[in-house]
Amino acid sequence: MKRPWSGQVEKEEEDQVPQHDPNNPLCPGNTRANGEVNPDYNNTFVFENDFPALQPNAPDPGYNQHPLFQSKAARGVCKVMCFHPWSDVTLPLMTLPDIIKVIDKWAELMVDLGSTYPWVQIFENKGAMMGCSNPHPHCQVWASNFLPNEATLSDRCQREYLKTHGEPLLLQYAKMEAEKQERVVVQNADWLAVVPYWATWPFQTLLLPRRHVQRLTNLTAQEREGLASIMKRLLTKYDNLFQISFPYSMGWHGAPTGPYLKEDQFHWQLHAHYYPPLLRSAGVRKFMVGYEMLAQEQRDLTPEQLLIKLSSYLNCVNLTEGP
Amino acid sequence: MKRPWSGQVEKEEEDQVPQHDPNNPLCPGNTRANGEVNPDYNNTFVFENDFPALQPNAPDPGYNQHPLFQSKAARGVCKVMCFHPWSDVTLPLMTLPDIIKVIDKWAELMVDLGSTYPWVQIFENKGAMMGCSNPHPHCQVWASNFLPNEATLSDRCQREYLKTHGEPLLLQYAKMEAEKQERVVVQNADWLAVVPYWATWPFQTLLLPRRHVQRLTNLTAQEREGLASIMKRLLTKYDNLFQISFPYSMGWHGAPTGPYLKEDQFHWQLHAHYYPPLLRSAGVRKFMVGYEMLAQEQRDLTPEQLLIKLSSYLNCVNLTEGP
Ligand SMILES: O=P(O)(O)O[C@H]1O[C@H](CO)[C@@H](O)[C@H](O)[C@H]1O
Ligand SMILES: O=P(O)(O)O[C@H]1O[C@H](CO)[C@@H](O)[C@H](O)[C@H]1O
Repeated sequence: MKRPWSGQVEKEEEDQVPQHDPNNPLCPGNTRANGEVNPDYNNTFVFENDFPALQPNAPDPGYNQHPLFQSKAARGVCKVMCFHPWSDVTLPLMTLPDIIKVIDKWAELMVDLGSTYPWVQIFENKGAMMGCSNPHPHCQVWASNFLPNEATLSDRCQREYLKTHGEPLLLQYAKMEAEKQERVVVQNADWLAVVPYWATWPFQTLLLPRRHVQRLTNLTAQEREGLASIMKRLLTKYDNLFQISFPYSMGWHGAPTGPYLKEDQFHWQLHAHYYPPLLRSAGVRKFMVGYEMLAQEQRDLTPEQLLIKLSSYLNCVNLTEGP
Repeated sequence: MKRPWSGQVEKEEEDQVPQHDPNNPLCPGNTRANGEVNPDYNNTFVFENDFPALQPNAPDPGYNQHPLFQSKAARGVCKVMCFHPWSDVTLPLMTLPDIIKVIDKWAELMVDLGSTYPWVQIFENKGAMMGCSNPHPHCQVWASNFLPNEATLSDRCQREYLKTHGEPLLLQYAKMEAEKQERVVVQNADWLAVVPYWATWPFQTLLLPRRHVQRLTNLTAQEREGLASIMKRLLTKYDNLFQISFPYSMGWHGAPTGPYLKEDQFHWQLHAHYYPPLLRSAGVRKFMVGYEMLAQEQRDLTPEQLLIKLSSYLNCVNLTEGP
């Protein structure tokens, strides 16, 4: 952190985003690439990605018997979900009832797509720095006919932990962090957001329910309200940190679905990861490059140092505790 | 690849880099942060990083008995290696004898640091887009008292493959790619550069010796000459692709060292990975973000499509085959 920085500096000012842009394919009433017209929606709006990475009928790559040249068709669907009809708001600027509508829609998509697909990945790329190509507040939902690598790894670790220690890993972890109060960024009756002990991205956080919950679909109405409130507080803190609309990639991990709905998934605990790229200021990011790509991710600041930076904005946030 | 792109566009023109900048701590004769004066070096120059991520005497974090709160001291050294006295050259612009000097110095550092450290990671972050904070041509060498994650994974996979299939994984792979000629970017008598079958980064390549070689230190004089030549050709192709000094992170993986020097490492095959970030043009990069961070890396182009793009520059390169 003491190195002089003469490397890349990010563009700090976002171009002013208009509330409604007649050329933005995500706005209400506009026509998309495939000719479809968006409805005049009032809260969330879900549609099939017009340029999907996964398709239900992806062709079979054919059979190759050599172990070094194996491939399989990755089949699935990609959906886009707008959070709000206005392009100039973000989740932390939305009202709690509107955030709850986003959470309800996430759960609804998990039920729909999860009825057949083993993995439904809900994720949000926020900000140009995180590859987001459209400023309208939205996330993506990609459902696949296979368990992706990260899902497989998370499943294996949680399964092994339960077997060895008799309690779901992330349930035990949340309890211990709640007790220690060393890495907690925000909390309420049902949720906890911590800078995880193993964080490598600067300002990385982990959002955890306090109760043992396996999937988004299992959240009670009260837990959804609590989630809306803690998301708003966490994201407001992020925005306050460098006084910008804070970029990040985030996403939900829960027990797998489709054929796994019938299996015991007691080892799973629902959680969301937030991975923000900024390190020193609104203009200087952390580059996960050479050593990180070839050897191992390494931290510039400890989670505890990050927490202090995030905590100093506690009092700037003029929000009630929420439910 | 057909998606309209209104996301982040990278700054295309590099600021003109002067051959010698009196304020650049990497240039010959200049004074560095710690007050040391660089010698008036003629080819390579190695020094200890003035802001090291790894230190030989890192303090012990203390003992915590809970399985979820484990940590250990990561000890090591970080060196910086300048490739050339001039700031305005890059490896592909250097002469073959000068590139050979770089390779010889890599091998020398592997001997020195590898005599005690189990892992010595040589890597180069090239270009501001890859977090490089100094335009002077250089790489880094980080030696650690542990096997980093990627090294552990690579060791495990190569070990298992040898056990199951009776031949080192990457030796067999190189032979098969040499036969197929479907993904070979450049080749000579001793080396092969391929877009690997499993590539996820656009224009990712894997550089492999044809002979079974476990470490950089085992390369013959002829193989070092061949390596200099193939590196120059590969990197010239990269530069020609979008007519810019092509950004990437690259690094070497070979059998572990230190205590492992005494063990059988037959499963290991030396190789270098190149990970370039650009996707569509000099200004539009691939973002490994939401889905990639939370689920799995996914490709925008197949390795074979990338090869065609790289191959169309075969004839622009006015270089003899080299040794
Ligand atoms: O060591 P440098 O060039 O200052 O820093 C660069 O390489 C390091 C090792 O890959 C990364 O951790 C840094 O994020 C990157 O900016
Ligand atoms: O889907 P988008 O927003 O066009 O694209 C963004 O998210 C994808 C999924 O994480 C990435 O593969 C792309 O590199 C990124 O630019």
